[in-house]
Amino acid sequence: FRVAPNRKLYRLKINRLWCGRTVKLLFLDNLSRSLATASPWTPKMSAPLADQLDIVIPTIRNLDFLEEWRPFFQPYHLIIIQDGDPTKRIYVPEGYDYELYNRNDIERILGDKAWAISFKDSACRCFGFMVSNKKYIYTIDDDCFVAKDPSGKPINVLEQHIKNLLTPSTPFFFNTLYDPYREGADFVRGYPFSLREGVPTATSHGLWMNIPDYDAPTQMVKPRERNRRYVDAVMTVPKGTLYPMCGMNLAFDRQIIGAAMYFGLMGEGQPIGRYDDMWAGWCTKVICDHLGVGCKTGLPYVWHSKASNPFTNLRKEYKGIFWQEEIIPFFQNLTLSKTSTNVEDCYLELADKVRKGLSHIDPYFSKLADGMVAWIEGWRLLNPPAASLEK
Amino acid sequence: FRVAPNRKLYRLKINRLWCGRTVKLLFLDNLSRSLATASPWTPKMSAPLADQLDIVIPTIRNLDFLEEWRPFFQPYHLIIIQDGDPTKRIYVPEGYDYELYNRNDIERILGDKAWAISFKDSACRCFGFMVSNKKYIYTIDDDCFVAKDPSGKPINVLEQHIKNLLTPSTPFFFNTLYDPYREGADFVRGYPFSLREGVPTATSHGLWMNIPDYDAPTQMVKPRERNRRYVDAVMTVPKGTLYPMCGMNLAFDRQIIGAAMYFGLMGEGQPIGRYDDMWAGWCTKVICDHLGVGCKTGLPYVWHSKASNPFTNLRKEYKGIFWQEEIIPFFQNLTLSKTSTNVEDCYLELADKVRKGLSHIDPYFSKLADGMVAWIEGWRLLNPPAASLEK
Repeated sequence: FRVAPNRKLYRLKINRLWCGRTVKLLFLDNLSRSLATASPWTPKMSAPLADQLDIVIPTIRNLDFLEEWRPFFQPYHLIIIQDGDPTKRIYVPEGYDYELYNRNDIERILGDKAWAISFKDSACRCFGFMVSNKKYIYTIDDDCFVAKDPSGKPINVLEQHIKNLLTPSTPFFFNTLYDPYREGADFVRGYPFSLREGVPTATSHGLWMNIPDYDAPTQMVKPRERNRRYVDAVMTVPKGTLYPMCGMNLAFDRQIIGAAMYFGLMGEGQPIGRYDDMWAGWCTKVICDHLGVGCKTGLPYVWHSKASNPFTNLRKEYKGIFWQEEIIPFFQNLTLSKTSTNVEDCYLELADKVRKGLSHIDPYFSKLADGMVAWIEGWRLLNPPAASLEK
Repeated sequence: FRVAPNRKLYRLKINRLWCGRTVKLLFLDNLSRSLATASPWTPKMSAPLADQLDIVIPTIRNLDFLEEWRPFFQPYHLIIIQDGDPTKRIYVPEGYDYELYNRNDIERILGDKAWAISFKDSACRCFGFMVSNKKYIYTIDDDCFVAKDPSGKPINVLEQHIKNLLTPSTPFFFNTLYDPYREGADFVRGYPFSLREGVPTATSHGLWMNIPDYDAPTQMVKPRERNRRYVDAVMTVPKGTLYPMCGMNLAFDRQIIGAAMYFGLMGEGQPIGRYDDMWAGWCTKVICDHLGVGCKTGLPYVWHSKASNPFTNLRKEYKGIFWQEEIIPFFQNLTLSKTSTNVEDCYLELADKVRKGLSHIDPYFSKLADGMVAWIEGWRLLNPPAASLEK
C-alpha cells in the first residue's frame, strides 16, 4: 500500500492559509479523501518533475478516463475541480493521489472572491492553478485520452510538455526547422547568434488528434472532420502574434505566468461560454511578450474523443464570435507599461485596460475586469510572497 | 520529337525588349540551344501551371541532377543562370525546354545595370527572376534532389509549392492546426471569422531533408547532423516576424513580390557571401507585411545532398554573422510609408532606408542600396508596365 506522499504538502498549505488569515481547516475533507485512495503499487513510468507538477482536471463526472492515463499520470498529484452539483460524489480511480475541490470548497477558501471563479463551465479549472503550490501545471479535459505517435507508440504527454517547458523559447525570430533545441535540430543559417540562448518558456500548448478544437459553426459545417495529421513539431508563437490557446491539453510554468492564467467569467450567470481558454490565451500571450518569455505550441497530442454538442456550443459562443472581432485587435494593439515588471502587476494593468478599452462592447467586460482583480487578490491570498519564495 | 513550346514566348520577349529599347537579338544564341534539346517524348506527370511557372537554376556545372527531377520538372520551362566562366559549356539533360544565360548574356541584356547581378555566387539566380515572363517562379539548387515522404513516396515539390501559392496565407493570427486551407484542416476555435478569407500568398519556402541549411559555425560544430524529421506542415510566417528565407527550394508569385526578390551583391568583389537569400528574405518579408500578403514555410521538402565546405562558408559568411545583429533589428523596426502601395515603390523606399540606416555599418550598404535601385531599373526594363498588364 502506498501512502499519499503529500501529507506534508497539505500541512504546508494549511499553514500558508493560516498565515493568510483563512483559518478554517479547509482541506481536511479532501485530505481524508486523498488518503482513502491509497492503493496497491503500480509500476512506475518515467515521471519527470513528479514533485514539481500538478495535474488540474475540471470535471462533472466520474474520472474513469484516468484509467487509460494511469501509466503516465499516477506518479503525479492531481487537483480535481468538481464543477456543478457539489453534493455529487465523483469517482476517482484508486491509486491516484489527489485533492478535490467542489463549489463549496471554492466558496469557503476564496470567500468574497469566489464569485470570480466560473461555475458550470470548465473555466473553473483555474481555481486549481491558484490552489496548487507546484512550479508547473498540466491541465487536461476528461474527454481526452492517450494518443499514439505515427509509429504506434503511446504518447507521454507530460514528458513532452516538460521538455517544452524546460527548454527555451525563441519568440523574436522564426526558425524554419521548428524547435531548435530538439535533438537533431538547431538554428538555421541566418538565425541571429545573439538570440540563440532563447528565453524562458511560460506555456506549452499541446494539440489534439481525432476531434479538432473547432467552434460551433465549423463543427456544424464539418461534422465528420477528424484530425489525422500528426505534425511532428514544436514551435514558439512569435512575439506580437496572438494564438487561440485551448485549455484541453495545456501546460505552463505557474511561477512565470500562473497569475495571468485566469479563465475569466464563463458559464452560469454569464453571457458567454467556451471563451475561457481563449481569454487566458490572449492575456497570457500579451503578458509573455511584455515580460520576454515564450509560448510554445505543437507536440504533444492527446486523443480528443468526444465533440461537444455544436448547438449547445453555438448558444454559448455566439456573443464571443462577435466580440472577438473587437477583442483581438484590442489585444493586438495593447502595450503594457515598463513599470509592470512582474506578472501580477501586468495582470492588474491589463484588467484596467480591459475595463477602459472593452466595456463599450458590453457591461460584461467591466465585470470581467473586476473578476481579474478579484482573481489576483485570490492568487495573492493563496500564494503570498513568502510562500512563493519558499517554493 | 517534341518541339520546344516556347518559340512564341521568345518572340514575345524579344518584342518586349525591343520596346524597352534593347535592340539586339539577345536571345537567339540561347533560343537555338533550347531548340537543340528537343528530345523523345517522356511520360507526362501532373504538371500544374506548367505554362505559368519558370524553374530558375543557378549553376556552375553540368545539370545531371535534372535527370532525377525529370518526371516532375520536364513539363516546365527552365531558366538556367550559368555562373562563373561564360565560355564553359554546361550540359543540360536532353528533353528539357530551357533558356540559359551566362555572364555575357547578363552584361548584354542589362548593360550598365549588369553590375547589380552578383558574379560567382548563387545570388546570380535573381537575374532569372527578372528575365522570366511567367507569373510564378520556382528556384532550386543543383545539389537538391527528390525527397520522399514518410510513406516512401517521392515528393512532387512543384505540386506542393503551387498549392501553397494558390491558397491564401494567414499572417494576422496564428492557427494552431497549421495551414487551415489544407484538406482535413480548418481554422480552430477562437480564430476570428473576419480573417478566415486570408490574403494572397507571395512566397512558399520549402525545407530540406538530409543536410540542413546551417551556417558555417553550426556546420563545424555538428558536422554529422542530418535532418531526418519530416514535419507534415505548412504555415504562414506571422506578420511582423522575420524568418531566414533560404533560396535552395523556394517558390514565389513573381507578380506580387518578384520586384523585391533581389539577391543582393554577393560573391566576387563583395565583402560577403551566403547572405543573398537572407537579404531577399528580410526585404520581401517586410514588404509582404506592408502590402498585406503572406509568406509560407514548411512543405515541400527536397533532399539536400551535399553540405558546402564550412571553411569556405565561414570566410564568406563571417561579416554577415556580425552584420545581421544590426541588420535584423533594422528590418524589425522598419515601417514603409502608406504612399508605397506597390512592390517596386516599396523596394525603392527600402533601398533609401538601407542607405540611410545601414551605411554606418560598412560602405558596402550604400553600394547595396545602389544595387537595389539598379535592380529595379533592370526589372522595369525587362518588365515594362504594358507587358505586365499582358501577363
